[in-house]
Amino acid sequence: MKMKKVAIVGASGYSGEILVQLLLNHPQAELVAVTSRQYAGQTLAQVFPKFASHPKSRTLLFSEPSVEMLAQQAEVVFLALPHGVAAEYAVPLLQAGRAVIDLSADFRLKSAAIYREFYGHEHPAPDLLKQSVYGLPEIYREEIKKSRLIASPGCYPTSILLPIIPLLRAGLIRPTGIIADSLSGVSGAGRKAEVDYLFCECNESVRPYGVPKHRHLSEIEEQLSLAAGTAVTIQFTPHLIPVNRGILTTLYLEPAAKLEPEAMAQCYAKAYEHEPFVRLLQGKALPDTKNVVGTNVCEIAWRLDPRTGRLIVMSAEDNIVKGASGQAVQSLNLLCGWPETAGLV
Amino acid sequence: MKMKKVAIVGASGYSGEILVQLLLNHPQAELVAVTSRQYAGQTLAQVFPKFASHPKSRTLLFSEPSVEMLAQQAEVVFLALPHGVAAEYAVPLLQAGRAVIDLSADFRLKSAAIYREFYGHEHPAPDLLKQSVYGLPEIYREEIKKSRLIASPGCYPTSILLPIIPLLRAGLIRPTGIIADSLSGVSGAGRKAEVDYLFCECNESVRPYGVPKHRHLSEIEEQLSLAAGTAVTIQFTPHLIPVNRGILTTLYLEPAAKLEPEAMAQCYAKAYEHEPFVRLLQGKALPDTKNVVGTNVCEIAWRLDPRTGRLIVMSAEDNIVKGASGQAVQSLNLLCGWPETAGLV
Amino acid sequence: MKMKKVAIVGASGYSGEILVQLLLNHPQAELVAVTSRQYAGQTLAQVFPKFASHPKSRTLLFSEPSVEMLAQQAEVVFLALPHGVAAEYAVPLLQAGRAVIDLSADFRLKSAAIYREFYGHEHPAPDLLKQSVYGLPEIYREEIKKSRLIASPGCYPTSILLPIIPLLRAGLIRPTGIIADSLSGVSGAGRKAEVDYLFCECNESVRPYGVPKHRHLSEIEEQLSLAAGTAVTIQFTPHLIPVNRGILTTLYLEPAAKLEPEAMAQCYAKAYEHEPFVRLLQGKALPDTKNVVGTNVCEIAWRLDPRTGRLIVMSAEDNIVKGASGQAVQSLNLLCGWPETAGLV
Amino acid sequence: MKMKKVAIVGASGYSGEILVQLLLNHPQAELVAVTSRQYAGQTLAQVFPKFASHPKSRTLLFSEPSVEMLAQQAEVVFLALPHGVAAEYAVPLLQAGRAVIDLSADFRLKSAAIYREFYGHEHPAPDLLKQSVYGLPEIYREEIKKSRLIASPGCYPTSILLPIIPLLRAGLIRPTGIIADSLSGVSGAGRKAEVDYLFCECNESVRPYGVPKHRHLSEIEEQLSLAAGTAVTIQFTPHLIPVNRGILTTLYLEPAAKLEPEAMAQCYAKAYEHEPFVRLLQGKALPDTKNVVGTNVCEIAWRLDPRTGRLIVMSAEDNIVKGASGQAVQSLNLLCGWPETAGLV
Repeated sequence: MKMKKVAIVGASGYSGEILVQLLLNHPQAELVAVTSRQYAGQTLAQVFPKFASHPKSRTLLFSEPSVEMLAQQAEVVFLALPHGVAAEYAVPLLQAGRAVIDLSADFRLKSAAIYREFYGHEHPAPDLLKQSVYGLPEIYREEIKKSRLIASPGCYPTSILLPIIPLLRAGLIRPTGIIADSLSGVSGAGRKAEVDYLFCECNESVRPYGVPKHRHLSEIEEQLSLAAGTAVTIQFTPHLIPVNRGILTTLYLEPAAKLEPEAMAQCYAKAYEHEPFVRLLQGKALPDTKNVVGTNVCEIAWRLDPRTGRLIVMSAEDNIVKGASGQAVQSLNLLCGWPETAGLV
Repeated sequence: MKMKKVAIVGASGYSGEILVQLLLNHPQAELVAVTSRQYAGQTLAQVFPKFASHPKSRTLLFSEPSVEMLAQQAEVVFLALPHGVAAEYAVPLLQAGRAVIDLSADFRLKSAAIYREFYGHEHPAPDLLKQSVYGLPEIYREEIKKSRLIASPGCYPTSILLPIIPLLRAGLIRPTGIIADSLSGVSGAGRKAEVDYLFCECNESVRPYGVPKHRHLSEIEEQLSLAAGTAVTIQFTPHLIPVNRGILTTLYLEPAAKLEPEAMAQCYAKAYEHEPFVRLLQGKALPDTKNVVGTNVCEIAWRLDPRTGRLIVMSAEDNIVKGASGQAVQSLNLLCGWPETAGLV
Repeated sequence: MKMKKVAIVGASGYSGEILVQLLLNHPQAELVAVTSRQYAGQTLAQVFPKFASHPKSRTLLFSEPSVEMLAQQAEVVFLALPHGVAAEYAVPLLQAGRAVIDLSADFRLKSAAIYREFYGHEHPAPDLLKQSVYGLPEIYREEIKKSRLIASPGCYPTSILLPIIPLLRAGLIRPTGIIADSLSGVSGAGRKAEVDYLFCECNESVRPYGVPKHRHLSEIEEQLSLAAGTAVTIQFTPHLIPVNRGILTTLYLEPAAKLEPEAMAQCYAKAYEHEPFVRLLQGKALPDTKNVVGTNVCEIAWRLDPRTGRLIVMSAEDNIVKGASGQAVQSLNLLCGWPETAGLV
Repeated sequence: MKMKKVAIVGASGYSGEILVQLLLNHPQAELVAVTSRQYAGQTLAQVFPKFASHPKSRTLLFSEPSVEMLAQQAEVVFLALPHGVAAEYAVPLLQAGRAVIDLSADFRLKSAAIYREFYGHEHPAPDLLKQSVYGLPEIYREEIKKSRLIASPGCYPTSILLPIIPLLRAGLIRPTGIIADSLSGVSGAGRKAEVDYLFCECNESVRPYGVPKHRHLSEIEEQLSLAAGTAVTIQFTPHLIPVNRGILTTLYLEPAAKLEPEAMAQCYAKAYEHEPFVRLLQGKALPDTKNVVGTNVCEIAWRLDPRTGRLIVMSAEDNIVKGASGQAVQSLNLLCGWPETAGLV
């Protein structure tokens, strides 16, 4: 079988690390280039000792990021860069006919104005916002297959959108009053040398942050608005907890009308029972990040509370697999016409 | 100064351990007896090696719990027992003229019917519910001073009631629609040998539990109803996170009317600015359990969200100090007429 | 390709869990039975929610352990049982012509007398000790291929034997004065409900245990003696550290004569440079459990200390993969004539 | 009682934080100045939110370090600075008649040549090495009382010297062949923004470092040589483990002659039974960092191994209390003629 050549720009962070892992072991993708300004010249084995037993780890070197090199060597390029710098690679790579899967927030929004509001600067390539596809395969599978620019969703948005979108689409819940309370592992902060993320600052600590207006709200609300057919504003509170990986989200939702358990079960079953990467929990089971870390699975459970009339939905995912790199590979599989689970189970 | 003799029944769990620590070092209390069926006959030093440098640790032995012995030796008795068994000590000790500070849920409710609903069995001493005082000093200081039976609050309730009661009393928030999302360290589960609380089951894991009807709801709602002057039903979701100690609670509240930041600040300042164990955070600061673990302090911060109109209040406390044993000692200090901070700073 | 049918007895512990994971995804083994007295009647998905997305997880039920059922359904049976009870399955299964891979200590020793000394009871099937093979593939590859009873090594022994045996065989170190200082994650204690292994007892704690005569010494010394051609007695100190998985061993060794770095490098290269599951670290790299957890790899690095004349060798492995279940699958692969890395990378 | 005025230079790191905590609550010391280039102008409460309930936390501001200011305001100055910069404060402060307690390595060695060998630069004030006293109170109590320049020991050295020195002095062990294997919490690396000490790099990880020649060897060997009356060279391997605080050291020692348990017990009892901060464990107890974290206590246990003839000694301490700031306050107490335990229990 012919392998497709792929490259990763910004491969030395935590998302980059997982992308490397998934692509080194992917049955149909061949990882041909990894870039990092900081580690240029070093082998994969030197930067990520855990991959040192892979035959490619001693021959594949990190290189300076160069659009020309990338366009020449790879057919699909993953961008694992900070917000605001993805455009300088995406624009010329798309022009050169390459497909781009961007893990940053740069192409997730349809509105450049909202981008400016939440990210504090003008969007660097607003024209591309029209052609980019929001890379949530369970929601945009067909669009992803046909796209050349995929904006892979954020970790928090994935954990919130997967549980809510089917409910909004089915009209089971109101589009108002939605609350998302999320707990994230520290890898979500990235591999940057900041005192706030030192072991001793995070261990034996739990804390909220970004209250009340976290940047991820922009893409969450845009996607929820599309699903609801009306503008949706939600409450979102992220917290940092002392685990390496994993996001646990608890959603507080208001049923649109009297909601029977059967209707709920049917709605989720219809949306997800055949999805390989969504797991609907049954019986008394509740999500637990330890059951999804290292996998591309999002677990979902729900409870109707007869005392308050509210619907509680809980989800768990690995923030850098289903919340980032695994989901990006899932999009790669769709884009390339491969089995959607290739390299992911 | 004359020391007051105190005893602890059920001193071998996590709350018991902190009670021992606080009372061994208390300037006015003398710890004269500790009981534990499991460890009877062993010294404090054997059961808690960390206290082995304290002179009393080698002479004070755990004994079988005996009402006669307790009544004879101690003036105040702390009960750190599982729910449902505190009454068998409280009743005779009160009859013998001793003061009782109970850390279980047994005397926290005014209603025996609600006790039965939430705890699944008849209340063993319903008459005592009338005379017990809910031991939240910031709310019931004067009542505690005069009481002989103090029902020390639960860890989750403390983290929820301290932030909400002043707002309800001032009429700043509606008594409806309240949501409390709480994260607790594993010590909250107690020192019992269950697979669910093994290191490998909790480390690198986050999970909700007791959804949607946790037992602590009963005392939370009873206290909120008293503060609001109307029946209050809330949504409460506890989560288990991998830290030893600490509770972080995020509250989602609805302002009763247009709420100005100044009104909020004044409300909390009036309630708490002179309280030694409530810390109102200023500026950009948000609660973090690492800033309160090991202390009797509850941190509180709040944000008004102009996008949703909601009020977000966050609190942090040490679940076994302010959420259990420290608060119980605070009540002891009030009961005995000592400085409220004695032995706690 | 024809799949080989395999079963696991005692599949609900941590080693069992990893065996299930490896065998569910093995390209040539078909997991046909899992037993557990405690969980009999439940599906894989119920006992291990993390496997719930695997198609087999809802159809494969835990059953009561029965030799007849096992002999009938499986060609190879893994025993993941506590010490002392493996024989009651191994004896009849071998008689029925099945191959047995035992993860307990029951068949690791050649001497029934040493077994009695270290395990405190008579060996239940001393005749089998002659035919069992110590399942360390890097050392006993050819023997494993021909065996029907494989005694898979302990976690500590693996981390100690792999680094030392080549040095003893080459005569580079003295067989005397060997010290092994090991640090193990808490999963090594098993999934048993004991207070000592609760989250709050292990988190923020480090402690030695089993000093100075841990049971694993028996198999370590027997294997080292075989390698040295003389009786070897070592010092071994295990410590419990707050990680889920991983063993880090530091070895203090005395060179037999003046030892040049080149001789050391050659010795290890000769022994391991083609081994898929031993990684010899180069340059300044030192072992780190985070680089091997989740893999079947053992990392090794060494330093000659010119100040003391000693040789320091350090190894890292995942205690329940290379130290238990992964190594057992490696033996399965050898036994069945499959590629040694099948299902392990 | 007249309070003594003390100041801390470099108070924003982990040692500084504990010094602040101890001195804020010390019955006889008054903390009058804290300096930090990075945080100058901020209050204690802003830099350390956990101290925000202390009345002084809102009035005491971090200032730029200035020798003049320090000499004017304080009688005793603690230096919690990186190696190599303490001298620029110590020299003028001593000249101004102030006492200095230095927590860095700068004045711990008697030999400027050894300093150069281990720290890679010339000693900045070699004359002071003669007058400085190694601040290990259990060993140099009388010298500390009379000194004006105390070099407070390193964390690893404390955990190694306290167990070994009495044995060497009594001639119970040989001065050769000593091995110290130590495990340290991450706070030992300081509060510096480096990728290696991020939560995700340390959590679920164990690793040796600084093998085979860690800088602390210089002071360990100098002190052991003084105790032995002969030059001592030891093997020392530090490891980083995922706890905030705590050091566990395992020592491998060779008895000088046939060593009876009674002689061992007597030697340690003679040395330490009246020491408030050394705890000799009895019976089956072994050290555990969780029993000493937050205290100034060093736990010691020992085992004679009849199989190898070796003596194993294990110690546990809090690396930033007994291993740093607590020990420095212990020296302060001696220096000032206060009870040695003042502010430490």
